[in-house]
Amino acid sequence: MKKRKNIKNLILDVDGVLTTGQFLYTNEGKFAKIFGAHDNDGIKLIGKLLNIHVISADKRGFGITRKRVVEDMHLKLEFVGEDNRLNWLKKNFNLAETIYIGDGIHDAVIFDHVAYSIAPANAFYLARDRANFVTSHRAGEGAVAEACLHIIEKFFKLKTKARK
Amino acid sequence: MKKRKNIKNLILDVDGVLTTGQFLYTNEGKFAKIFGAHDNDGIKLIGKLLNIHVISADKRGFGITRKRVVEDMHLKLEFVGEDNRLNWLKKNFNLAETIYIGDGIHDAVIFDHVAYSIAPANAFYLARDRANFVTSHRAGEGAVAEACLHIIEKFFKLKTKARK
Amino acid sequence: MKKRKNIKNLILDVDGVLTTGQFLYTNEGKFAKIFGAHDNDGIKLIGKLLNIHVISADKRGFGITRKRVVEDMHLKLEFVGEDNRLNWLKKNFNLAETIYIGDGIHDAVIFDHVAYSIAPANAFYLARDRANFVTSHRAGEGAVAEACLHIIEKFFKLKTKARK
Amino acid sequence: MKKRKNIKNLILDVDGVLTTGQFLYTNEGKFAKIFGAHDNDGIKLIGKLLNIHVISADKRGFGITRKRVVEDMHLKLEFVGEDNRLNWLKKNFNLAETIYIGDGIHDAVIFDHVAYSIAPANAFYLARDRANFVTSHRAGEGAVAEACLHIIEKFFKLKTKARK
Repeated sequence: MKKRKNIKNLILDVDGVLTTGQFLYTNEGKFAKIFGAHDNDGIKLIGKLLNIHVISADKRGFGITRKRVVEDMHLKLEFVGEDNRLNWLKKNFNLAETIYIGDGIHDAVIFDHVAYSIAPANAFYLARDRANFVTSHRAGEGAVAEACLHIIEKFFKLKTKARK
Repeated sequence: MKKRKNIKNLILDVDGVLTTGQFLYTNEGKFAKIFGAHDNDGIKLIGKLLNIHVISADKRGFGITRKRVVEDMHLKLEFVGEDNRLNWLKKNFNLAETIYIGDGIHDAVIFDHVAYSIAPANAFYLARDRANFVTSHRAGEGAVAEACLHIIEKFFKLKTKARK
Repeated sequence: MKKRKNIKNLILDVDGVLTTGQFLYTNEGKFAKIFGAHDNDGIKLIGKLLNIHVISADKRGFGITRKRVVEDMHLKLEFVGEDNRLNWLKKNFNLAETIYIGDGIHDAVIFDHVAYSIAPANAFYLARDRANFVTSHRAGEGAVAEACLHIIEKFFKLKTKARK
Repeated sequence: MKKRKNIKNLILDVDGVLTTGQFLYTNEGKFAKIFGAHDNDGIKLIGKLLNIHVISADKRGFGITRKRVVEDMHLKLEFVGEDNRLNWLKKNFNLAETIYIGDGIHDAVIFDHVAYSIAPANAFYLARDRANFVTSHRAGEGAVAEACLHIIEKFFKLKTKARK
């Protein structure tokens, strides 16, 4: 974990973070992914506080991801392979100002280089073991929404409307 | 929670209440939602006791919701955005006579204004923390059916046929 | 529970027993159900010991059910509504010789009239509370396969090949 | 468990190992299977250490399986029925050099004949009870990725890049 400056960026992985991490395959190949309903509510609450970027290494499912993330959630989406993910992040963001939400084998490595790291409840165990915060909700069942509220309260000391 | 009068209305959210709260996306966009088999049995048992209204803020998935809720379950369905949901409810129902089943960030706020509030086992934590009753079943796995039996027993002092 | 004679019949409900109990809906209506891979293995082991009948009250999804149950599993399937399910069972089977696997509100009532009743781990609570045996596996994740092995061991005193 | 020689082969079942073990059925029959996102990452890490073979007894879903396993994961896939699975394995591999990952009734029998056996967290209970190692992740949620890291650490004494 980098020495923390002011938090300015939120980077989210897609599969296993905004989705359940599962792919439905038919005879034609990759057909569908499963997104959750809560996450967009959380993203909207944090959208004015942080620069949000979504990245994905899933080439074959990129069209599916784009439909949800770009067209329906209106977020910035970039294809970033797993091999050069850390380099890409370093080039494009000051990681001391960046929160990263990931769930996989390779995300675990990135966690050491960002200001704050978050993993969904059902993230791969290496990511879960290394994250600064693990949500109580599973991916595709509110993990990102919970992460957003957690960030708002921890880094912006705000109580969200939804809180008593 | 409002001072309770006679319970007359039951308002249900759709995503995360009648569904698992998940959207299947394909390359064409939002494709499917996942509903449970038990809920219609519960709704039928309570249908003569309460005025049932289903509301949803999901515009892109409204056609999917209509198929299940209106055509197959024969319930009243209305599109109600999340921003003005509380106002819409106040305008259309006496909330002191109303039970509300919801699961999301914005539903949690509504819970304070109705006679009785119910959340599924896997509702977003803010809703779960504030509900008067949390079902043991998850959404899409019997949460609404369980809520219906709970309402029948608590507010109408009836034993359902299914009970010993 | 009826006084038990020799067990001759095994009756299975479909939704929530052979499936997860969930319906995928699209804009066109009911689209898909989710079956498990283990159950057919269990059914094959018990097929020579018992007369197996599958019943379903799901009219709109009957074509889906038929594909799996009749064409792929080669079992007898009958449409039987929930209202007259008990009468239909009494007319067609000697219930003192019958094991019934069900998961729903209305199945719970039937449990009192058969020789032995089984519910999947995630059955609706009324069914789970009344069943003679509750599987450790969830529906669509091996519940029926486990039920079959349980029946073989309890009523036929056989050790299955798969056992040590 | 055979007396262990040097481990050279890794054999994986498909349904319930690389998938959740579930089949989506529509009116047209078997339509889709649900694969997880982590497993390919684990397979890539172990691909240079072991000869990997994927086998499946699911004829109707073989086209679906091929899309994921052969085209997208670039693994060798073979149709092997359940009845002659053990014989097929004995003929094609030295089982004292072979690790097998399976989840079903018939896989449990195979476990006794290989050098090391692994079952996903939600495998059928007979397989889970007999496996040398049971993953903490469920099938379709990282079970195979976890199995791969476990094999690397246990049999090759390597620390994976992803480890601290």
